[in-house]
Amino acid sequence: MATPKPTAILLVSCPDQRGIVAALSTFITRHNGNIIALDQYVDVEEGVFFARMEWELDGFAFPLDRFAEQFDPVAQPRRIAWSLHRSDQRLRMAVMVSKQAHCLYDILARYESGEWPVDIALVLSNHEDHRGLVERHGIPFHCIPVTAAAKAEAEAKQIALLQSAGADFVVLARYMQILSPAFVQAFPMRILNIHHSFLPAFAGANPYRAAHDRGVKIIGATAHFVTEKLDEGPIVEQDVIRVSHRQGVDDLVRLGRDLEKIVLSRAIYWQLQHRLLVYKNRTVVFA
Amino acid sequence: MATPKPTAILLVSCPDQRGIVAALSTFITRHNGNIIALDQYVDVEEGVFFARMEWELDGFAFPLDRFAEQFDPVAQPRRIAWSLHRSDQRLRMAVMVSKQAHCLYDILARYESGEWPVDIALVLSNHEDHRGLVERHGIPFHCIPVTAAAKAEAEAKQIALLQSAGADFVVLARYMQILSPAFVQAFPMRILNIHHSFLPAFAGANPYRAAHDRGVKIIGATAHFVTEKLDEGPIVEQDVIRVSHRQGVDDLVRLGRDLEKIVLSRAIYWQLQHRLLVYKNRTVVFA
Amino acid sequence: MATPKPTAILLVSCPDQRGIVAALSTFITRHNGNIIALDQYVDVEEGVFFARMEWELDGFAFPLDRFAEQFDPVAQPRRIAWSLHRSDQRLRMAVMVSKQAHCLYDILARYESGEWPVDIALVLSNHEDHRGLVERHGIPFHCIPVTAAAKAEAEAKQIALLQSAGADFVVLARYMQILSPAFVQAFPMRILNIHHSFLPAFAGANPYRAAHDRGVKIIGATAHFVTEKLDEGPIVEQDVIRVSHRQGVDDLVRLGRDLEKIVLSRAIYWQLQHRLLVYKNRTVVFA
Amino acid sequence: MATPKPTAILLVSCPDQRGIVAALSTFITRHNGNIIALDQYVDVEEGVFFARMEWELDGFAFPLDRFAEQFDPVAQPRRIAWSLHRSDQRLRMAVMVSKQAHCLYDILARYESGEWPVDIALVLSNHEDHRGLVERHGIPFHCIPVTAAAKAEAEAKQIALLQSAGADFVVLARYMQILSPAFVQAFPMRILNIHHSFLPAFAGANPYRAAHDRGVKIIGATAHFVTEKLDEGPIVEQDVIRVSHRQGVDDLVRLGRDLEKIVLSRAIYWQLQHRLLVYKNRTVVFA
Repeated sequence: MATPKPTAILLVSCPDQRGIVAALSTFITRHNGNIIALDQYVDVEEGVFFARMEWELDGFAFPLDRFAEQFDPVAQPRRIAWSLHRSDQRLRMAVMVSKQAHCLYDILARYESGEWPVDIALVLSNHEDHRGLVERHGIPFHCIPVTAAAKAEAEAKQIALLQSAGADFVVLARYMQILSPAFVQAFPMRILNIHHSFLPAFAGANPYRAAHDRGVKIIGATAHFVTEKLDEGPIVEQDVIRVSHRQGVDDLVRLGRDLEKIVLSRAIYWQLQHRLLVYKNRTVVFA
Repeated sequence: MATPKPTAILLVSCPDQRGIVAALSTFITRHNGNIIALDQYVDVEEGVFFARMEWELDGFAFPLDRFAEQFDPVAQPRRIAWSLHRSDQRLRMAVMVSKQAHCLYDILARYESGEWPVDIALVLSNHEDHRGLVERHGIPFHCIPVTAAAKAEAEAKQIALLQSAGADFVVLARYMQILSPAFVQAFPMRILNIHHSFLPAFAGANPYRAAHDRGVKIIGATAHFVTEKLDEGPIVEQDVIRVSHRQGVDDLVRLGRDLEKIVLSRAIYWQLQHRLLVYKNRTVVFA
Repeated sequence: MATPKPTAILLVSCPDQRGIVAALSTFITRHNGNIIALDQYVDVEEGVFFARMEWELDGFAFPLDRFAEQFDPVAQPRRIAWSLHRSDQRLRMAVMVSKQAHCLYDILARYESGEWPVDIALVLSNHEDHRGLVERHGIPFHCIPVTAAAKAEAEAKQIALLQSAGADFVVLARYMQILSPAFVQAFPMRILNIHHSFLPAFAGANPYRAAHDRGVKIIGATAHFVTEKLDEGPIVEQDVIRVSHRQGVDDLVRLGRDLEKIVLSRAIYWQLQHRLLVYKNRTVVFA
Repeated sequence: MATPKPTAILLVSCPDQRGIVAALSTFITRHNGNIIALDQYVDVEEGVFFARMEWELDGFAFPLDRFAEQFDPVAQPRRIAWSLHRSDQRLRMAVMVSKQAHCLYDILARYESGEWPVDIALVLSNHEDHRGLVERHGIPFHCIPVTAAAKAEAEAKQIALLQSAGADFVVLARYMQILSPAFVQAFPMRILNIHHSFLPAFAGANPYRAAHDRGVKIIGATAHFVTEKLDEGPIVEQDVIRVSHRQGVDDLVRLGRDLEKIVLSRAIYWQLQHRLLVYKNRTVVFA
């Protein structure tokens, strides 16, 4: 596979208005950008326009550090909120994990085999269990135990480590501690969590036990951005698997592990590709 | 397709115990019954044994009206709860419906085309809308308006009609009224409902609106037995379909209709085949 | 639900080229069209651009009968192939059916309940079985028996009936005869078929028997446009259901019926909404 | 989780006959075996009976090395074919892999985390690429290059290594060489393969390319036992994922990797639990 040509990726949202697609696409085209992907979506109910545009950097009329200045005359009058990304700039991801390692294994396998264009800046855990696993991949591992009494202190350490490592976003790969609002606010819409149920069903602890006791015929897993409200952040991806009365709680846990790792990895992939937009506690996924 | 030979179907549950399968299968075999299907399941956690046995009536040692007397020496010491059914005895089903007709259409199509071995005893509605549709199938239709003030009276009429029509079970095919505990108690574990969400998520009214606002990536439908607690009865079947940010509430309603009719029809099919057992608010589905 | 405002829908395909989105969206915007949906897709491998644009007719600068003339200066130099449709113009659909009626029932239910904005121009069958079912919906029914000897003659009658009824497209709702190339050429990419397997697996006759004998763990159904090669036309939609060794051929047939009717109906819905483009024996579905 | 009590697992198949379940369950019960699971299935069409019985070894009347002698009077007259297994006896699995490592990673992660009760006897590859990955798990790795000219010689080495390592079964985890009939015959119904398509669609090489060119809307993966006919062995498990025109071949490959590893791992899990029976090129999966 040849290395793909580097591209710029622009994510925008703004009040829906006449001519918005024309304005955006004309801006890029006029500056000699070859648009290779344009996804747009209008939430008619809310009157909001969203788009993701990707164009080749090769031949584009000006360097991207001048984008803001050039784009401002288009963006300002239309009240466009936007972010700009480069496909040739690898994101730095941090991973937080507790004792269960299936999501961590899956992430590390994709990392080691080069499936994802990502750097793993560090792995944080509240247990020592997976130090060897992480360090054999050459990734820094920090164990910060979390106790009820010293939670604030622990989180302060975590935040400092994440920031000094330059983490662009954080993945909770079955990290079994609830993050404080202060932690969440330090990384707004930059923390992805995997919850082991089909949210909003079975939020909180022990979802497989709860699913079993309710007698559901399908179980699920949910990747979402973390907000201050536990398990209520914007959903990025979900998937499910059929179960029957024959499956005990242990079976649900076993089947669920595969769901969790796949669902989380899909969410990470989209994050790496700048395909996620958030509004009103929902996501637009330009998959 | 040749008419299948008539069979007896025995559903049993009892405390799990050594030798229970041997005792049951030996009883049938000893009386010259040719077992054509035996499904069994042990809930290890609860210590409960469940089974469904089906054998050919042809050549069986005694007529089924003597089954209780013959089976008692096996059942009594083992505390077996059981029910006996005949495959050549068509069940009588009642349907209750409000304005939305997609489930009713689906049921009537299966009825008219002979897909199900069932008699539809009657259709009850709180609206006149579907009288023509029902009556053209030669099925009695009764419109009983339900108002908050006269609900008890309306339900009394409904119960009387259901009982005098000899309904073996009742299907709520998008019947948009909440049944009182008295109504439910008149047909214990004999009322199947279709709820237009993936329960326990989005119980109650307007689940598609709620699903949209929560931003789920998959929606579902749930068939369940009705108990006194709204939308909390034992789940019989569920299915789901993937959605995205692009689907508005109207789209969810449209996609959901197909889920609802298929999920409800699967539950009815199993009910007609005596494949459902209920315990502890869960179902065993010997599908 | 308020009646939605009438819209124009433009389907385009052309060689991929710089500025194509800008050119299209600017054309509509310049003529005062409020774009409410724009889906576009570039097949990078083939170098082909596809789009579906929908805008409100209200306030658009010129009547649609002048569209060709106005759009020509945009389309011609870019070698754009296009078709234009109006959301307020109901399509006329023809249905062909043999003995199995589950898809027909499903179509008629959606028709009668007003789910689809469609007129059913007529139903053709090679059997009399469903005359009553069709005619009670006020739809013309024609029975044209098809024999090997007189197939050409039968098809000539069918084509004449379809053309004189002004059918915009034809749905084969489990029509069990193979259409001749001449028939197919009379309605190019305007015949939708439902095949009762997950194509390309089990093309041809008796797919459920073949699926059972192969021991697959999942069965499917496929809606596709009909071309001269049997079961090889462009696929519009597929769906599947899990099965196990417990399901005999009869069970697969039963489960498959529900797949078939849902899959076919999704394809029809997209056809009615002008969401389908065909190229190189594949479809672009702007769902 | 407490260690489960050791059990015996009996797999049987025989001509269907009256009293077979009673005979089997009575035999175990009479010898004081506490049956904790009994799955049975009758293929009515073929007239074959299949069962899987699991009972606790604790308290069973005789040691399992005397099972054949004791069971013979039951088995012989009924022409029962059977195999006996112990839950406390870990199987020895061999893995064969080429360059693509996603299935290997998944297997090793389950192995290292103790998800499966299995010993990995060795890993064979025709490339050196994954030596480090395998050896860091303490598993012997052998690289045996395979050329068209020296294929027989290479296979002889592989067979010798597999046999001397005492491999109970072999997993082809994306091993990209076709095994000769001689190889297959050395491990009859003991080689599990993952094929990267929804068989029987797209057998052979480059299935994702073929799926893309055919324009399917769903892709799949298939785990099957290897027989002498390429990609035609008994299917153990399949799963699928929805795709659209937007996914190029590279996307299908990426999405397919996750399918492949999950589907293969499910098949391995059932193999480890002695839940698979094969007949007439189909499988019975007592999942």
